[in-house]
Amino acid sequence: MENYLSASESRLKEIYFDLLKEYQKFKDMNLKLNMARGKPSSEQLDLSLEMLDILNSTSNLKSRDGVDLRNYGICDGIPEIKEFISELSGISPENFIVGGNSSLSMMFDTISHFMIKGGEGCKPWASQGKIKFLCPAPGYDRHFAISEYFGMEMITIPMTKTGPDMDLVEKLVQNDEKIKGIWCVPKYSNPQGITYSDKTVKRLANLKTAAKDFKIIWDNAYFIHDLKDNGDNLLNIMEECKKSGTENLPIIFFSTSKITFPGAGVAFMACAGENLTALKKMYATKTVGFDKLNQLRHLRFLKDKETILNHMKKHQAILKPKFDLIINTLESEFSGNPIIKWENPNGGYFVSVETYPHCAKKVVELCKDAGVVLTSAGATYPYKNDPNDSNIRLAPTYPSKDELKLAMQLFCICVKIAVIEKRLNNNK
Amino acid sequence: MENYLSASESRLKEIYFDLLKEYQKFKDMNLKLNMARGKPSSEQLDLSLEMLDILNSTSNLKSRDGVDLRNYGICDGIPEIKEFISELSGISPENFIVGGNSSLSMMFDTISHFMIKGGEGCKPWASQGKIKFLCPAPGYDRHFAISEYFGMEMITIPMTKTGPDMDLVEKLVQNDEKIKGIWCVPKYSNPQGITYSDKTVKRLANLKTAAKDFKIIWDNAYFIHDLKDNGDNLLNIMEECKKSGTENLPIIFFSTSKITFPGAGVAFMACAGENLTALKKMYATKTVGFDKLNQLRHLRFLKDKETILNHMKKHQAILKPKFDLIINTLESEFSGNPIIKWENPNGGYFVSVETYPHCAKKVVELCKDAGVVLTSAGATYPYKNDPNDSNIRLAPTYPSKDELKLAMQLFCICVKIAVIEKRLNNNK
Repeated sequence: MENYLSASESRLKEIYFDLLKEYQKFKDMNLKLNMARGKPSSEQLDLSLEMLDILNSTSNLKSRDGVDLRNYGICDGIPEIKEFISELSGISPENFIVGGNSSLSMMFDTISHFMIKGGEGCKPWASQGKIKFLCPAPGYDRHFAISEYFGMEMITIPMTKTGPDMDLVEKLVQNDEKIKGIWCVPKYSNPQGITYSDKTVKRLANLKTAAKDFKIIWDNAYFIHDLKDNGDNLLNIMEECKKSGTENLPIIFFSTSKITFPGAGVAFMACAGENLTALKKMYATKTVGFDKLNQLRHLRFLKDKETILNHMKKHQAILKPKFDLIINTLESEFSGNPIIKWENPNGGYFVSVETYPHCAKKVVELCKDAGVVLTSAGATYPYKNDPNDSNIRLAPTYPSKDELKLAMQLFCICVKIAVIEKRLNNNK
Repeated sequence: MENYLSASESRLKEIYFDLLKEYQKFKDMNLKLNMARGKPSSEQLDLSLEMLDILNSTSNLKSRDGVDLRNYGICDGIPEIKEFISELSGISPENFIVGGNSSLSMMFDTISHFMIKGGEGCKPWASQGKIKFLCPAPGYDRHFAISEYFGMEMITIPMTKTGPDMDLVEKLVQNDEKIKGIWCVPKYSNPQGITYSDKTVKRLANLKTAAKDFKIIWDNAYFIHDLKDNGDNLLNIMEECKKSGTENLPIIFFSTSKITFPGAGVAFMACAGENLTALKKMYATKTVGFDKLNQLRHLRFLKDKETILNHMKKHQAILKPKFDLIINTLESEFSGNPIIKWENPNGGYFVSVETYPHCAKKVVELCKDAGVVLTSAGATYPYKNDPNDSNIRLAPTYPSKDELKLAMQLFCICVKIAVIEKRLNNNK
């Protein structure tokens, strides 16, 4: 396909006017499509419908130990679901706190706890002046929103193919005790789908930080969310930290939001030592217990490692064609025309693209004006500020394949229009 | 019955040795009973069993507006459940945020929010030095635990028959801008079962506080939890505040914990103006949404005001005989013997007693040694410090009537033993 970066100005203009005609056709279709959020489709949610039949008025509603799960109590989760998540994650059951339907909420609670109480014998974060957090980017906008809520300074860390730029991370944390933590989506990262390499995990587990109260927020949101049969492997950071005597570093999160129902799933967190003691105590103050019937419902539906992995295969069967469609469209539209690069992830919920510099906002705007909502350009960076204005997160899971096909056709046209406009303007 | 306060020392000794024999009989029974927490009994939980049949794999899982409630979104609660709680509470639907299974958790989040962000244009509470909270006592230990977690100084406010001592409240808040709020269980207060009088509610709604960022935490935990056919009436504080232009004061909480399942209910909060805007924004940062399927399940089960009030009648039918048993036992054991006073509440979950001064700890200890666990003496006061060591909270809901009968017999013996010991020691 024609390379816009080497094409002449007059040739670009020709192409541009053709593209505008194509664009107008899409506008005339009055589309109303959304590729903005990582929401499972109805078809995926239907995979878990039977979970709603599991508990009824005739069910045994007691835990293995005979506790009536309808009543108050068991603040940190029923023992059998801790064993279930332990088998899946390779982290001991006793390291877990099992929560309500939102792991994001548990991350917020965790940050809040360190703001108010501090950790490792240090003063509360809220009493240490403006603290800082490392934000590998592109990254997850809701993490950055939490940092912003708590008034932290966010430091952007570039992502590499093996995870955050660890040279930079190590350099920064060893000199600045105001840096209190790092946000990580270590497997199938949001949005790039990058899985941290073994070396990256080991380096994180061996961080020498000026702050004694540094924490690694390990949001393992896509831990079993493979799109291909041979998914990525992520090293168990808790094990690595055990070896290094740094078990106080990681606080690890999982959830079933994208396994069963985003609106009614179960969240899990795992940590060790003082973190575990303090956060359990915090939750014992905050609540008499999370929804244990929903924990039981999930346990009886997802059963064990084999059952849940089979269940994830069904998600994969729905999702893979959608991701393939995106990748194939990008390949057929842009091969030989290096105005956009993209990741081809082995799992997760997104396809991340990098447009020619300073075109992302324009692409998103063009798509929106023709009825296709994308994640806002910049959303994947702290302060919504993508210095190159080039990253766009495509979320292919929610729309149908037909909708996605249309949306991607439009997207490619918009990328081309935006890049040509930028090129023509640059030449002025 | 014989009055221990006027009996001679030799007569007291006689009674004492008889009581010790009776006490020993109870010890020999190896009881294992619990009157410590306000937990509904299994029989009460069974009243809501059918709620578990409401949602199944064939149900319509969409909201009235057509939103798939299995998926992400609708952070502040589905509109129809807001209307439901509005009808019950007399507060507008748009004032509500509907949460997960724990109203305590929402109170914690609320306090946490003001600690971190502040309100009414003031600095965050965490940046204002040691702040203070008014704690009507006897009161709810979990409220005091939240204050303690956040490092607040707690100021004990004596309870009267009409609510907190408002003369003292008004005097304190008008002079001390460090006083940021008051914990209230305004209807069937925990533990005394006192309902705030209209005058008390009006005085609270018209508080002149030195702190611009003062908040009334209105934990209306027992709002429809009557034990008698003509329950108490509580004035709608939001309405009173509207009249007075003080809608920024109250933050109101309800929950279905003691209506359906404590372990899997739905919590509600209501507030207005800046409180509502800020707390909605906080929740939108903290979570993509609470469990909406459980909201739907509750809505379809509890339906409307008539249905839920009928449901509460069934709880009443189970609870009233237990409360009657306690009151009748106390009356028959202690009439004419003024060593203990008790409340006879029209609703709620507790019977609060006041023993002869400095005997409560001893009573609880004696009961425990004979196998009956009561709420720790002192638990109903800030810092677990009951200055008179006289308040004991009896929680009759969880044990069976037979268990309760035994437990109360023992309790009365323990009260008598403790008082006689105290009297004999005082005479030394």
